[in-house]
Amino acid sequence: MTLGERKFPEIRNNPHWVGCACVVCGRHYGPDHDGFVCIDCGPGGILDAAYDLEAAGHVIAGGAGFSGGPATGLWRFGPLLPIQVTGDHPAWTVGNTPLLPADRLARHLGLKRLLLKDDTGLPSASLKDRAAVVAIARAVQLGLDHIACASTGNAAASLAVLAARAGLSTTIFVPKAAPKAKMAQLILHGATVVPVDGTYDQAFDHSLILMKENGWYSRNCAHNPLLVEGKKTVALEMALTLTDGFCAGDAALPDVVLVPVGDGCIVSSVAKAFLELHALGLIRRVPRVIGVQSSGSDALAAAWARRGNEALSLQGPEILSEVVPVQPDTIADSISVGLPRNRVKAWKMVASTGGGFLSVPDETIVEAIRLLAATAGLFAEPSGAAGLAGVVAAQEKGWIEGGESVAVLVTGHGLKDPTPALDGMSMPSPVSPRS
Amino acid sequence: MTLGERKFPEIRNNPHWVGCACVVCGRHYGPDHDGFVCIDCGPGGILDAAYDLEAAGHVIAGGAGFSGGPATGLWRFGPLLPIQVTGDHPAWTVGNTPLLPADRLARHLGLKRLLLKDDTGLPSASLKDRAAVVAIARAVQLGLDHIACASTGNAAASLAVLAARAGLSTTIFVPKAAPKAKMAQLILHGATVVPVDGTYDQAFDHSLILMKENGWYSRNCAHNPLLVEGKKTVALEMALTLTDGFCAGDAALPDVVLVPVGDGCIVSSVAKAFLELHALGLIRRVPRVIGVQSSGSDALAAAWARRGNEALSLQGPEILSEVVPVQPDTIADSISVGLPRNRVKAWKMVASTGGGFLSVPDETIVEAIRLLAATAGLFAEPSGAAGLAGVVAAQEKGWIEGGESVAVLVTGHGLKDPTPALDGMSMPSPVSPRS
Repeated sequence: MTLGERKFPEIRNNPHWVGCACVVCGRHYGPDHDGFVCIDCGPGGILDAAYDLEAAGHVIAGGAGFSGGPATGLWRFGPLLPIQVTGDHPAWTVGNTPLLPADRLARHLGLKRLLLKDDTGLPSASLKDRAAVVAIARAVQLGLDHIACASTGNAAASLAVLAARAGLSTTIFVPKAAPKAKMAQLILHGATVVPVDGTYDQAFDHSLILMKENGWYSRNCAHNPLLVEGKKTVALEMALTLTDGFCAGDAALPDVVLVPVGDGCIVSSVAKAFLELHALGLIRRVPRVIGVQSSGSDALAAAWARRGNEALSLQGPEILSEVVPVQPDTIADSISVGLPRNRVKAWKMVASTGGGFLSVPDETIVEAIRLLAATAGLFAEPSGAAGLAGVVAAQEKGWIEGGESVAVLVTGHGLKDPTPALDGMSMPSPVSPRS
Repeated sequence: MTLGERKFPEIRNNPHWVGCACVVCGRHYGPDHDGFVCIDCGPGGILDAAYDLEAAGHVIAGGAGFSGGPATGLWRFGPLLPIQVTGDHPAWTVGNTPLLPADRLARHLGLKRLLLKDDTGLPSASLKDRAAVVAIARAVQLGLDHIACASTGNAAASLAVLAARAGLSTTIFVPKAAPKAKMAQLILHGATVVPVDGTYDQAFDHSLILMKENGWYSRNCAHNPLLVEGKKTVALEMALTLTDGFCAGDAALPDVVLVPVGDGCIVSSVAKAFLELHALGLIRRVPRVIGVQSSGSDALAAAWARRGNEALSLQGPEILSEVVPVQPDTIADSISVGLPRNRVKAWKMVASTGGGFLSVPDETIVEAIRLLAATAGLFAEPSGAAGLAGVVAAQEKGWIEGGESVAVLVTGHGLKDPTPALDGMSMPSPVSPRS
């Protein structure tokens, strides 16, 4: 079956997407540039998509440009995405996830208000679908019917699930030591899984060579600047809901948003979304975005703490040298990263919101899973609960003050990785049946 | 915290809900009756909620009564539910699930069109949430803050998850042999789990005694006639979508809908929903509803096959004597049932649509899981894939003809029970890394 037979709706460039800029040196690349990192800066020089916000603002006009119309799911936010899609397709069923007020949990934590943005019900049960759907649309737009990535976790699952919906082929490179159950699930969805005899980084480098040789599209989020744009939609949805379509003012926006941090893609995107809405005049204040890492995988949080007050004003090259690799050791598999690939962008975006990075021990993450499950009816995987785990740490640092309202991203379902939460739980004793 | 402090929106009886009738003898009970089965017929005499459809029809008026207004999630269908809720609550985030066209799978199966109603993204990852949310609302309406059930599977998970969102207490009775991981997940959500030293049936009987002694509300779906009404909404949503809010005629409705069958609650509800829409004049034809069991748990399918052409006209008492228990043995845990508790209602409703019951071997269910995952990007648990597994069997029986369109319910997520699909899958060999 050719791409044309798959009957995709029209996919085109956003006319106000002006290309990408290197987050380290600022060098500009047009929309037709087909590389993923800066030619001058190499792998540290992640590119960041840019828009002519003034022109886009005329299209959006008070939020009406986000009303969706024929666009479904996250494509309603087309004016702030590099590509735009109109019309429906089974692969576009991503977005419009619940924003749950958690009043009991708010009282427990001494917060004025707590909102949980619940992405656990997305097709592959994690927020990563928001990036995968952009990868699929972009590949189709470019006429490519094969997508690849290096991952063992949620990124791979999101690619496998949504590519199956789109009818595209996928190859997924994994380190040889990847858990068999995760590989089996990818194969079940029709992906070709290639175990690489080495580390995750070796699998990543291997994937880049094979992608280039075979002309496959890359769903490696941290180095493909278009995919992270899809992740912005989690924050755009939150803002749209809380401002009643940007008609009701921004009083209901949270003061602080907490986001789990692995490679730094999600936290970058959340901060960027609020900054863009602010630049467009759709909100008047930007929530402070706080990135939460596990203490066992805290490259950004450790560097942020070392720089103290200077952290907020560091430039790209300084960030590159300040953030040094750690040996990751955490139960929170999806945020277990030695050196976050998107560290420069994450740092700069978070700093622009007045936020910061902090870390929490694994025990606090497990406790956060329990709190979410018992008081809010949400089952999160460890990385998915890290945002909530950061609340108390942020309060202790004075980053959240009394009377402030907080939103937390819950990024992945607990059924993906139930063991850390359930292990060692004591079981009740049986009773005799009555009749 | 008292119920009042939980700030539930108003919950009231649907004024056109006239009570319940016994599915065996037809005896009528008013809305105030607080028993769950017929006094004359005992446990076989399941009650079925009834409405003054003529009066309700004036409220609904061409589908406009389902527009939702201040009602969220499945409460938009208040005119066809026993109770009605206006206003929002974090426990009401159930409903509006995707209806995915599966064109590649349709071609593979030789169908004109195939639609997948995907309930795997609901809060507890199964369709059972549609019943649990009604249980919670009804308990709150009655001033009860404690709900109980006997279950080890999806019914228990849905109660634990949504009760946590509502701030209600739960007690869940399980047979001692229940898998520890499933018990642990219930405990994680704050449920009190009571293992009963006996079979599932003994746990069920035990639960009824404890509920009565303690004044707890019952979330045992098969014997609580209000809960199954919530399950109708999966079919109501499908019809609403495919008729464009009952404005565009019923040409896009499927000819056949396939539903997995355990106790028979879901299949009853799906058939009933279409029959009510037909009685209201909102659709002019009723899709044939086919109930699919596993060959290892086929009490209804075996009885249906025994009666041949007479099956369509059997009355309640005849159905009660015809459907005899089997010793269940299937990988499809959630539909592994010896004697379906809701067998009489299921049989009568399915017969009224011109459908039927059939069974498929477990290997066909596993194959259906693979097809769903690889061609439609949906990961279903075994019971959740049983509906699709029934398509070929139905074609072979002539129950689906060439050129007909089909819808299948996908009722539960594969991550709940991944082993049957993933076990024994062969893994690819590692390659040497390139760089």
